[in-house]
Amino acid sequence: MYGNEGISDKKTLKSAFDRAVYQVGGHGKRNVEVLKRAFAAIDGQLDSDMYGNGHAMEAFEAKMAGVLGKASAVFFPSGTMAQQIALRIWCDRKGTKRVAYHPLCHLEIHEEDGLKELHGIEPILLADKDRLIGLKDVQRLPEDVSCLLLELPQREIGGQLPPFEELAAISAYCREKGIQLHLDGARLFEILPFYQKTAAEVCALFDSVYISFYKGIGGIAGAILAGEPEFTKESKVWKRRHGGDLISLYPYFLSADYYYEQRIGKMDLYYRQAQELSGLYNRCHHLKTVPDVPVSNMFHVHADIPKDRLEHILIEVYRETGVGLTPALKEKTDQACTFEVSIGDRYGEVPIDRLQLTFELLDHKLRGESF
Amino acid sequence: MYGNEGISDKKTLKSAFDRAVYQVGGHGKRNVEVLKRAFAAIDGQLDSDMYGNGHAMEAFEAKMAGVLGKASAVFFPSGTMAQQIALRIWCDRKGTKRVAYHPLCHLEIHEEDGLKELHGIEPILLADKDRLIGLKDVQRLPEDVSCLLLELPQREIGGQLPPFEELAAISAYCREKGIQLHLDGARLFEILPFYQKTAAEVCALFDSVYISFYKGIGGIAGAILAGEPEFTKESKVWKRRHGGDLISLYPYFLSADYYYEQRIGKMDLYYRQAQELSGLYNRCHHLKTVPDVPVSNMFHVHADIPKDRLEHILIEVYRETGVGLTPALKEKTDQACTFEVSIGDRYGEVPIDRLQLTFELLDHKLRGESF
Repeated sequence: MYGNEGISDKKTLKSAFDRAVYQVGGHGKRNVEVLKRAFAAIDGQLDSDMYGNGHAMEAFEAKMAGVLGKASAVFFPSGTMAQQIALRIWCDRKGTKRVAYHPLCHLEIHEEDGLKELHGIEPILLADKDRLIGLKDVQRLPEDVSCLLLELPQREIGGQLPPFEELAAISAYCREKGIQLHLDGARLFEILPFYQKTAAEVCALFDSVYISFYKGIGGIAGAILAGEPEFTKESKVWKRRHGGDLISLYPYFLSADYYYEQRIGKMDLYYRQAQELSGLYNRCHHLKTVPDVPVSNMFHVHADIPKDRLEHILIEVYRETGVGLTPALKEKTDQACTFEVSIGDRYGEVPIDRLQLTFELLDHKLRGESF
Repeated sequence: MYGNEGISDKKTLKSAFDRAVYQVGGHGKRNVEVLKRAFAAIDGQLDSDMYGNGHAMEAFEAKMAGVLGKASAVFFPSGTMAQQIALRIWCDRKGTKRVAYHPLCHLEIHEEDGLKELHGIEPILLADKDRLIGLKDVQRLPEDVSCLLLELPQREIGGQLPPFEELAAISAYCREKGIQLHLDGARLFEILPFYQKTAAEVCALFDSVYISFYKGIGGIAGAILAGEPEFTKESKVWKRRHGGDLISLYPYFLSADYYYEQRIGKMDLYYRQAQELSGLYNRCHHLKTVPDVPVSNMFHVHADIPKDRLEHILIEVYRETGVGLTPALKEKTDQACTFEVSIGDRYGEVPIDRLQLTFELLDHKLRGESF
């Protein structure tokens, strides 16, 4: 979702978005400057890591283990690799090939079935495509399930979250039943302002945790997998098997550390800005956000008009206001489309009166739609 | 081999090596400066690649496809990932799980059995641990073998090479028998001066080719897998499954391109320097090189004295001459040890008279050994 697939007029909307004076989402362009900025203050004499060893890498892993409240952490080039490996380890421990996750889990829809093709693991899809996994879904799991993966927030449905109490109840149930609980925390830091919890408090409910450094943190790439030392030690063996134990990973973890320090204190700001922006969308005819009130820095916008119509309107709005709202739309049906919004540093650069004007104009044009 | 394992006195020899004025092997320290140097002249506004797409990445892949004389090439974070995937694709094509390679193949001894654990592929080990695969070994292969992997040069036996004619005969035999031939070309550029061939001329004998950017080229990390478009397209699906389809790989391929341009013209120099240096080793008592005359920028030194004795002597030599020859030794038996030499930019920095003096002193001390 939200990739290149099925976005026919991407070029036009994308180019109008790129030409706008302001772009509302994200931290900015993903370009070489992101690397240069991170490395500007790093001493060139700092030694590279060597196949997972080295002072700088171990220090970053220890720092992140501390942040997540886990005993140990391992840096991975990607979350795809880290999460497949986590589930494989839990399956091997239990001697089964079954895990459970949401139907729109990253492993199910974005990884070319790596979990199945490389590890022979068969997932049980819990809940439905349009709602969160709840305690009642978990209570129906068969006994041979080794691990339940929960994604917080559930990105593909707009970044939704269960109440913390329900999460705690799911965790307690899994512990009772001997089911390991794994956190897809690609956007973990982004939900802490809503939960009013520390990362460690959320992670305490989980046996293993993955976090990403290029969503809210805005790094270049890379991930951390955390848990007990026996678990992370085993994950390093699988990292080598996957071809992820690179001779040097410092371009990723040093930049991850840099942008972590830059942005970890801004998550509350992004969260409040997402609420502000969702309010502007929800005041427009034909548009509504999911969730209605965001619980992180992200949400989805659903439009009950055809994709090509909304594209046409958005291009006009970008041109007339100089404010770009989204670079791409995704067709839902013939008569409906959707797009994702993630708040980052760029939101704060848009003057609020100009943003309000943009939405007044957008609403005005949408009112003209007869659909 | 030549990792951390089994090197008990590593710290002492390593620290004496590091403290020496000159270090004979490699290109220099693997530190952050390697990245900074590569990116100094790259425009910060250059867009990142996005999940394998993007102008800069595609341009580099096309350039390398051209160098290797193949129709298509894909950049990978690691050779471990690229090669497992190549063998998996060839196995799937033939509907078998059997490949063949050397007993000291990288996949067999350095990858925690990823090929077996992730892909269920069973290798046939050809030839012996101390010699190259020859045509006669290949002729004994069973019919259900999908792919033969040849490593040029065979690193773990000092970087040996078959005559080009034998290589051509193996290639012809494999084509006749429907066995795909894959090149582990981690050090492909380093052997071209010996063969007096272009990379494309060597690769023409192979159906798929992997090359590395952090051996002779001296980049940060990264690999290219090349072949027919159908093959490389499939390799991208597997790259995603392995977790190697990172949102951004530019820290690796842009630096790979930079160091490729810096060093591709120096391979003949490294080759001649390796011959010079092996001559100096072979004039020392108790030492001999394998191969006797190097065919690339690398060779192994074998000593028929115990590891701790040679360490002691080397530390004295480094201290007295300011020239460090190797940072580590590997125990072969109680009475013998070995180490690897790879020539890079640092060799040319050592004054030749000082190097000769170093070897005179080394030989003098070795003569005193009663073993």
